Amino acid sequence: MKARQVFFVVAAALMSCLLSACESAPAQSAQGRMVRIAELEIDPTQLENYKALLKEEIEASIRLEPGVLTLYAVSLKDSPQQIRILETYADADAYNAHIKSPHFEKYKKGTEQMVKSLSLVEMDPILLGIKK
Amino acid sequence: MKARQVFFVVAAALMSCLLSACESAPAQSAQGRMVRIAELEIDPTQLENYKALLKEEIEASIRLEPGVLTLYAVSLKDSPQQIRILETYADADAYNAHIKSPHFEKYKKGTEQMVKSLSLVEMDPILLGIKK
Repeated sequence: MKARQVFFVVAAALMSCLLSACESAPAQSAQGRMVRIAELEIDPTQLENYKALLKEEIEASIRLEPGVLTLYAVSLKDSPQQIRILETYADADAYNAHIKSPHFEKYKKGTEQMVKSLSLVEMDPILLGIKK
Repeated sequence: MKARQVFFVVAAALMSCLLSACESAPAQSAQGRMVRIAELEIDPTQLENYKALLKEEIEASIRLEPGVLTLYAVSLKDSPQQIRILETYADADAYNAHIKSPHFEKYKKGTEQMVKSLSLVEMDPILLGIKK
């Protein structure tokens, strides 16, 4: 095979890869996963400190733990001390590993005086539609 | 450049692309986006029909609309007629285009007799941690 032929074959594969990485992901079925919404109320005087620790914990969990699929944290616009986190774990084993991880233990210990209330609402996934 | 050289240069680029597409995405900052949680109660006798229409709408929105970033639908495990959808739009324009889309209008019209209540809770994003 000549240089030009090799170039076009491999360049076509490269283009195909790039295109597939850029296109929208299909909405994902999420059966079998462990999903919940954590509802927290934070001491308003500690809110910025709390959010810094939460962000650090989310970043580490997504980066280091294969079974932590989403940790999407938001706050109510009209009541910023009210936090909601939509959590998705691959399965119960992934969740049990998560709560024993050093980054989760750091978050839990670091925020225990900041959290005024915590409610964990178990969910069944219907569909995770997400743009990749 | 000889065929072998061309092959190795382009193959290295291809490998690099594949590796970057497979690794975990970093947690994303989501400032400037429009985020909310829709809280719906569905007529229990219509729940399966409702979920079918909702899934169709989510799949079309993620596939066709560049500004629809997440539509993550879940139901309360203890009360399946209670639906929660965590919605993220790139900005207000993306949201306004979304509610005028044919697939959203089909969903809205098709489900109006199924939805017993609807509450839209505006959110501020803190961090979207998601595994890609």
